[in-house]
Amino acid sequence: MQLPQHVKLVDVGPRDGLQNEKQAVPAAVKIELVQRLQDAGLTEIEVTSFVSPKWVPQMADNAEVMAGIQRKPGVRYSVLTPNLQGYEAAVKTRPDEIVVFAAASEAFSQKNINCSIAQSMERFRPVVQAALAAGIAVRGAISCAVGCPYEGEIAPERVELVARLMRELGVQHVGVADTIGVGTPRKVQRALEAALKHYDINQVSGHFHDTYGQALANTLASLEVGIWQFDTSVAGLGGCPYAKGATGNVATEDVVYMLHGMGISTGIDLDRLMDAGQFISDALGRKPHSRVSNALMAKRLS
Amino acid sequence: MQLPQHVKLVDVGPRDGLQNEKQAVPAAVKIELVQRLQDAGLTEIEVTSFVSPKWVPQMADNAEVMAGIQRKPGVRYSVLTPNLQGYEAAVKTRPDEIVVFAAASEAFSQKNINCSIAQSMERFRPVVQAALAAGIAVRGAISCAVGCPYEGEIAPERVELVARLMRELGVQHVGVADTIGVGTPRKVQRALEAALKHYDINQVSGHFHDTYGQALANTLASLEVGIWQFDTSVAGLGGCPYAKGATGNVATEDVVYMLHGMGISTGIDLDRLMDAGQFISDALGRKPHSRVSNALMAKRLS
Repeated sequence: MQLPQHVKLVDVGPRDGLQNEKQAVPAAVKIELVQRLQDAGLTEIEVTSFVSPKWVPQMADNAEVMAGIQRKPGVRYSVLTPNLQGYEAAVKTRPDEIVVFAAASEAFSQKNINCSIAQSMERFRPVVQAALAAGIAVRGAISCAVGCPYEGEIAPERVELVARLMRELGVQHVGVADTIGVGTPRKVQRALEAALKHYDINQVSGHFHDTYGQALANTLASLEVGIWQFDTSVAGLGGCPYAKGATGNVATEDVVYMLHGMGISTGIDLDRLMDAGQFISDALGRKPHSRVSNALMAKRLS
Repeated sequence: MQLPQHVKLVDVGPRDGLQNEKQAVPAAVKIELVQRLQDAGLTEIEVTSFVSPKWVPQMADNAEVMAGIQRKPGVRYSVLTPNLQGYEAAVKTRPDEIVVFAAASEAFSQKNINCSIAQSMERFRPVVQAALAAGIAVRGAISCAVGCPYEGEIAPERVELVARLMRELGVQHVGVADTIGVGTPRKVQRALEAALKHYDINQVSGHFHDTYGQALANTLASLEVGIWQFDTSVAGLGGCPYAKGATGNVATEDVVYMLHGMGISTGIDLDRLMDAGQFISDALGRKPHSRVSNALMAKRLS
């Protein structure tokens, strides 16, 4: 099969990444991170989340960050909105896209958001309706699409069910997320194929974690079924709350390196991206969680 | 294409790995590492190197290690022999296989072993002849098969040339090694295909470094061209001398996790392998360079 010639990466570092970092980051730093990512060529950035600051204090500055970013034509700025209250706060900040999420695992849904998968869908229904009525794009994230920390392996049929429910709600795009990074190439392909039963190839993206080092192999396996959109996180921002000492989101730098090496365009300048990753890593007081960045930075210094 | 159903891994940790670690490891520890690897199910282990202790003091205990290992039927014990003098010392220790090596890069050959590629081949000729006459298997390693720290990208034609020369010498198997880890899936496939012009699919293996995090994606890409033999290094032993702060050999644990997750057998028990990796990492006073090991060890402790 011919692989996609172009790949779109959505950098989820400012939201998914920083939300899972222990250290708080000032709004000004987040705003500069978004600026650096768009300067590096990213065309979609998950900026922040409109959730209760009681649960996610790291994102309490959501409106401030959205107000502070310098929007660039052609770049899409998305925000996470877990419920109608969050959506109403979010919409005032003019996002281009909102993100809703549901788990493919009942146990994870219960433990993470304290309701069943079906209940989580009902909670999203008014959010999706309001967004679509306002002309705002809606993306759905299917978490634990390959494995769950409580249930273990997740059958592709679970992913298909959530994809079908999302389709029925009017969600326009789904991301298949291996939240705990346990997936391997064939399992990831089966999860993607399950989503593809209800969405077309331009409406499904992959979201992989590098906890077990599998993210790039899974990305390659996804390209082989035609997937050309992926969530990645600059500097690998975001640890993995379910596996201590392990890395979480795959680093944007590592994915870009692989794609460019394969002759697949991304529109991203790897050098500027690495600088963005170094900038936020400096703010966090650690090295980037990116093998490419660490290898190339060592070369720059040698 | 149907992927291979079974993969053979050659653990190069005791030789290629420990040779590139700064700390010296006592012979007794190396012997126990070999024991633990064969107990975990490895069927080929690169044990040591017969090179001048002036250049590689870490392997000065080569004869002691070879004498100390408890050989297990069905396991192949290989040693590196860069020249006839090394071979003559090695043969007394009864290796099942010897390994000779040449670079696909002229500059690397000159800087690493101080001679041209053609000269390195001439140096191996008597070694290969002696080994074959003695009924000892001969494997050839083609280093810098994708990129070189001095020359940059390496054309597949360079790999093909070295493979042809090795074939002419009588070398029975070649390993295509991305010594500095810069390779990405398509480039690696082209390098393997170059070697496959002179060797059949059962005579070519892949040897990847995780310096840029590409090793598992490259392994998957290799499976897709039918390659079913790989060199890996328990606990990711062996740093990368050409990229400070970077990881080197891909961890056997990470490869096994991916393969088993894909339903491909290896004969290896991942738990026992992780214990072997933890054992040698403890001896080196650091954590394993394996994402799988770090994630699963954290789970064991939680």
